[in-house]
Amino acid sequence: MPADFRAQLPALANKTYFNYGGQGPLPTPSLEAITASWRTIQELGPFTGAVWPFLDQISGRLRQRLAHWFGVPPQRLAFTENVTSGCVLPLWGLPWQAGDELLISDCEHPGVVAACRELARREGLTIASLPVADLRGTVAASATTVLERLEQALRPATRLVVLSHLLWNTGQVMPIAAVASRLACHRRHPWLLVDGAQSLGCIPLAEAAAAADIYACTGHKWCCGPEGLGAMALSERLLQEARPTLIGWRSLSQESSGSSGFHPDSRRFEVATSCLPLWAGLEQSLKLLEAQGSAEDRLAVIQQGSHRLWVGLQELGAATCLLEGPPPAGLVSFQLAGDAPGTVVKRLGERGIWIRSLDDPACLRACTHISTTSNEIDALLGALARL
Amino acid sequence: MPADFRAQLPALANKTYFNYGGQGPLPTPSLEAITASWRTIQELGPFTGAVWPFLDQISGRLRQRLAHWFGVPPQRLAFTENVTSGCVLPLWGLPWQAGDELLISDCEHPGVVAACRELARREGLTIASLPVADLRGTVAASATTVLERLEQALRPATRLVVLSHLLWNTGQVMPIAAVASRLACHRRHPWLLVDGAQSLGCIPLAEAAAAADIYACTGHKWCCGPEGLGAMALSERLLQEARPTLIGWRSLSQESSGSSGFHPDSRRFEVATSCLPLWAGLEQSLKLLEAQGSAEDRLAVIQQGSHRLWVGLQELGAATCLLEGPPPAGLVSFQLAGDAPGTVVKRLGERGIWIRSLDDPACLRACTHISTTSNEIDALLGALARL
Repeated sequence: MPADFRAQLPALANKTYFNYGGQGPLPTPSLEAITASWRTIQELGPFTGAVWPFLDQISGRLRQRLAHWFGVPPQRLAFTENVTSGCVLPLWGLPWQAGDELLISDCEHPGVVAACRELARREGLTIASLPVADLRGTVAASATTVLERLEQALRPATRLVVLSHLLWNTGQVMPIAAVASRLACHRRHPWLLVDGAQSLGCIPLAEAAAAADIYACTGHKWCCGPEGLGAMALSERLLQEARPTLIGWRSLSQESSGSSGFHPDSRRFEVATSCLPLWAGLEQSLKLLEAQGSAEDRLAVIQQGSHRLWVGLQELGAATCLLEGPPPAGLVSFQLAGDAPGTVVKRLGERGIWIRSLDDPACLRACTHISTTSNEIDALLGALARL
Repeated sequence: MPADFRAQLPALANKTYFNYGGQGPLPTPSLEAITASWRTIQELGPFTGAVWPFLDQISGRLRQRLAHWFGVPPQRLAFTENVTSGCVLPLWGLPWQAGDELLISDCEHPGVVAACRELARREGLTIASLPVADLRGTVAASATTVLERLEQALRPATRLVVLSHLLWNTGQVMPIAAVASRLACHRRHPWLLVDGAQSLGCIPLAEAAAAADIYACTGHKWCCGPEGLGAMALSERLLQEARPTLIGWRSLSQESSGSSGFHPDSRRFEVATSCLPLWAGLEQSLKLLEAQGSAEDRLAVIQQGSHRLWVGLQELGAATCLLEGPPPAGLVSFQLAGDAPGTVVKRLGERGIWIRSLDDPACLRACTHISTTSNEIDALLGALARL
């Protein structure tokens, strides 16, 4: 299955690449779609009555396609420059009250954590931690523990829960829909913010995205789209309760009037001019992925690779995988006796093999995607054995 | 001078284009710089130790070059996705007090106005208007009136003044440095937000940018850079007084820690992943402009065109220019007896001539840039005469 896809990724031609969770390779057809749309914009526009239908077509098509991936109506999907903006932007407009509590998992990205801390400082909120970093067993066992811990952590003041779908450090999958159901029973029904940075293009996300209040993704990791474009699904109640913060012509229902109201739908969280050619590139990348099978099919291929790597690491005396069983997705995190993670990354890089290190917990992370070959995995395992 | 520059703009090959104030044409070398950097990112990266020096070089070079254009140290320059974000982002982090007043000119862009209205609603601020739309005389006469009106409008509660440098509707230039000097004498020294959407690439802006607290620009209009990239210059006091709102790894001095402090410099207002290839494209566009002469030289060429157009419109019986004298920059706004502005735009578009309409005041706007030829101006005048 992945051979024809892989052939379209020039980044993989001269290296052994395992950093899909950092940034995915850009397929040649996607770069061509980007440059072709720029050429068309020059031919028709760039700011003319002739170009608007073309731009509407690019944006409309991607909104429709991504809404399908997210499993939400297009009216609930907003575009952002990156996943962090998608996580944070809607938060600033929610009706906070001093004393509200933010319950944040201990595996969230530093950018989101720092934004929540600043929000808490300004609005007089408290922050509590939901520990999930230590959940190294099966997805089912982890889910049970997450729900138990959530039960213990929920307080009358809890107003928001922040939890990634696929944890970027341990690679564990979180039970987002079950968490959402539990929150719906809380007297104040806390909002649920899901950082989906590692989800889109890696695991099926429709159930989780439909259950969350904010489900934010980026196109430049597992989707292999261009950097600088992400999207978020917003719940109906969030759209009603949250006000836009960063505001521009794209937020306004009448873009030529400063006293205009905001779009009633998710576009109220979009801002102003962004780079439409990137939208054409992301759409092309999504189409290439779709041609490789359904989200479930693709995850099965991803798991084949991550399981092979996990098993191989088990057999390597010096390595300890963070997860006790084969990973549920494509993130394989492990610790290695001996050199510091940063040193290992550098030495592997010198051999053209690219993985990354993480600080918390201190570990190494290799990602397998549908483009990853058995030979690549074996090359990594061999290089680790010879370090 | 402009012949070689013009030859690099494919958008101008098949149309008569006057919408530089909406979006500039993208030069072929800039598109090539964008695609070349994407190819290099694939070759070296996209997420590898080998690619970081290349990306640092792209971002460092553009920050340095743009800082020179803005006339501020690189530490005072931050990048944003668009000019509206550059205007609005720093505002949300300023230490507002209920009752503070925002003094906003009546020529500001709807996006910025709507953002200020939402800020006022949340923080309990009042909004007052500084009328400048009616200033149709010389720049010097307008400056005198602006300062008189500012004097009348300033109140003890005034905390922010919002004024564009080059008004997007009438095309008048505002005395930013003089306004800044006046505000410095006010007991509370109100912050000065300058929307420079029409400035960068059109008029010299170093004096104004250095005097403002926030001076926000975009690269995709007069600079002929790609859409989706802008920058803002921030004053030292703003950097000390304002807290970031949208926060991501690029805001943090230690990007791997959620309890990190923010960068002490302007990078605290940058967020997370953006599209670095666009940076390479904007740098190429700036270099092409620099090769055409200094900002002053280029403005002189722009004025030759706008003066020719303004004179020609004067001679056209049905047209009334908004400005009473030759425009100080490249924006030429006018009203036409007869058809509604939108109808005129459409009819000209059918002939391959592109200008735009504005709502407030209802008018037509044509822009001349260094790439505009006398033939194009005469073609527009001829077409208007024959409407």
